[in-house]
Amino acid sequence: MATPERHVYLDHSATTPVDPRVVEAMAPYWSESYGNSESPHAFGQAAAGGLEQARQITADVLGCRPAEIVFTGSGTEADNLALRGVAWAARQSGRGNHVVTTPIEHRAVGQTVDQLRDLFGFEVARVPVDGYGQVDPDDLAAAIRPDTVLVSVMAANNEVGTVQRLFRIGRVCRERGVVFHTDAIQAPGRIPLEPDDIGVDLLALSAHKFYGPKGVGLLYVRGGTSLVPAITGGAHERGRRPGTVNVAGAVGLATALRLVEEERVAETARLCRLRDRLIEGVLGSIPGSRLTGHPVHRLAHHASFAFRGVEGESVVLGLDVEGIAASSGAACAEGEPEPSFVLAAMGLSPDWSIGSLRLTLGHANDEADVARVLEVLPAVVERLRAGG
Amino acid sequence: MATPERHVYLDHSATTPVDPRVVEAMAPYWSESYGNSESPHAFGQAAAGGLEQARQITADVLGCRPAEIVFTGSGTEADNLALRGVAWAARQSGRGNHVVTTPIEHRAVGQTVDQLRDLFGFEVARVPVDGYGQVDPDDLAAAIRPDTVLVSVMAANNEVGTVQRLFRIGRVCRERGVVFHTDAIQAPGRIPLEPDDIGVDLLALSAHKFYGPKGVGLLYVRGGTSLVPAITGGAHERGRRPGTVNVAGAVGLATALRLVEEERVAETARLCRLRDRLIEGVLGSIPGSRLTGHPVHRLAHHASFAFRGVEGESVVLGLDVEGIAASSGAACAEGEPEPSFVLAAMGLSPDWSIGSLRLTLGHANDEADVARVLEVLPAVVERLRAGG
Repeated sequence: MATPERHVYLDHSATTPVDPRVVEAMAPYWSESYGNSESPHAFGQAAAGGLEQARQITADVLGCRPAEIVFTGSGTEADNLALRGVAWAARQSGRGNHVVTTPIEHRAVGQTVDQLRDLFGFEVARVPVDGYGQVDPDDLAAAIRPDTVLVSVMAANNEVGTVQRLFRIGRVCRERGVVFHTDAIQAPGRIPLEPDDIGVDLLALSAHKFYGPKGVGLLYVRGGTSLVPAITGGAHERGRRPGTVNVAGAVGLATALRLVEEERVAETARLCRLRDRLIEGVLGSIPGSRLTGHPVHRLAHHASFAFRGVEGESVVLGLDVEGIAASSGAACAEGEPEPSFVLAAMGLSPDWSIGSLRLTLGHANDEADVARVLEVLPAVVERLRAGG
Repeated sequence: MATPERHVYLDHSATTPVDPRVVEAMAPYWSESYGNSESPHAFGQAAAGGLEQARQITADVLGCRPAEIVFTGSGTEADNLALRGVAWAARQSGRGNHVVTTPIEHRAVGQTVDQLRDLFGFEVARVPVDGYGQVDPDDLAAAIRPDTVLVSVMAANNEVGTVQRLFRIGRVCRERGVVFHTDAIQAPGRIPLEPDDIGVDLLALSAHKFYGPKGVGLLYVRGGTSLVPAITGGAHERGRRPGTVNVAGAVGLATALRLVEEERVAETARLCRLRDRLIEGVLGSIPGSRLTGHPVHRLAHHASFAFRGVEGESVVLGLDVEGIAASSGAACAEGEPEPSFVLAAMGLSPDWSIGSLRLTLGHANDEADVARVLEVLPAVVERLRAGG
């Protein structure tokens, strides 16, 4: 199956194409430097050299120590390792049983917290968000108890693009001595990521969200943070994530992260201009439309809307016919008919929240793509409202 | 860092080079068909098409239904999903608390069972193995209790190459209605793998052990087997393994599995001849040497030895200087000074079990490689015994 000849890809928050420079960086690790990075012989050491170089590059970008980087098999796994790891370690040492999070987390966090509650007996508090999807740091502070062992608040929401007040949340957690995890999977290349600046103890990334390969993520783990491994089986990654390391993947992640951070300032400015044109154009031409998420504190590449009385999924399919790839909320929620739980938590009524559309820009998009959306989208919405 | 110019790679049980045909099959999924396989638009559907084709190919090789294949981020994760998934599901439904396994499992199973015991309160029985590393199916039958919820026995041991009596173990489990998991990570291309033939309910594989990429594994899950996801975060892989699917990796795994199974009979015969020449040569030329594992029921590519009074790690380093890549037991156990827990479970005394050497053959090896080992190895062992 091929993608259509004429196409506009506006689903970069779901996934991105791998940068050709990243493909090139990975190439030697398939059939040449293919050793197991744990092996002491020359083949193993060639692989280990590539892995440690990738770890150093990543640490340089994040402003942390290489030993604080754990490569995982996905961003979801990184979130799982953070939550399960901290919760189980706290259980083991009898430090507490209470986790604080929000109702708009990605399911990698939301469902993991649910399982910790339902299967492992943890208590969970979800601090509400406002109409823009932001948590009030004072509310968060009020939710923290003496037995709270972990706070998990995402850096930026995948569905509505809202960026949280991370620095203030970090300060709240630091003052109370509570471990702070952030799912920063939507953030690279868009907002600054250095854990020491944010005041975060655990930070999860996924390579395929920033022009790296699928199947590799990372968890930053601040030195001294107690973590029980969520997957067990060996001493790899300092005992925190076992299994033969995907060296090509780690090299791909590191290369992609370096590139996207090097290009962040210029690319963010460019994407903001395109995004704002898109937002103005959509709101100005489609009645019964509104922006979802924060109007200012939002990801530079992220435009999300709600259309009253229209199903977002139908809008996505209507755009697909025109060669435009978009999303109705989170890609992971596709195929489910319920209204978005994120929009519901932000207080949108169902007649709005079923009509969610996400347009997320990337490297290859330009003015012509924005113009193409503005040419096509109003008619798609109008046709659906007319019942066809 | 480069591998030496003149080199003989004899560590295929640790990892393998990716077959160039596999690299080629993965290539379109980096920067062309890069969509998220969960997205309904054309980009997503192109990726989903590749993924489902990979699942079908894999199912065809295993003689099972595509819906029974779960792609994971590694073989270790597949083993973890099997063990945690079945144990937690049994816990949830109050079906029992008891797991039966062996003392020679890979740590992906061994450490996971330990965590189930130490952190989650399960009871564990480890059925002993004989001097060749085989479990007696009658002993296994005797260890099964009314509250046993899972039996986990590896198909073939990574360290000594011994193949278990899987069919008989499968029959024991079926007769008692106990879920049977096998870590078959060393098996593809060497022994038949069809779950219905073996009578196994869960079977874990890892692509990089059979000329596929690192960072992708699979778990076969027999229809109807209750499994709580070990990583949570979405509905991917029918709710059993969330996270954006590594489509390139799945395609790579499927392609590699098809190729290695197509070539199994001819390649197994060829490798057996090389292996037997290697074994005869080593035992005939090095005093104080013995074969470890089963002399007949062993993997076709796998030769493992113990040398009395010599450290296996030193032999590996001595061979490395000569451009030969070998292993001292499991790659995952490198860097640890203790004698092999596998050899200890088989009853070898420490003066033998510290001197473990594994030579595992693969596609690129030939008679000249075997001759090179036989030229070099006796002198390496002799020099070490002489104290230098």
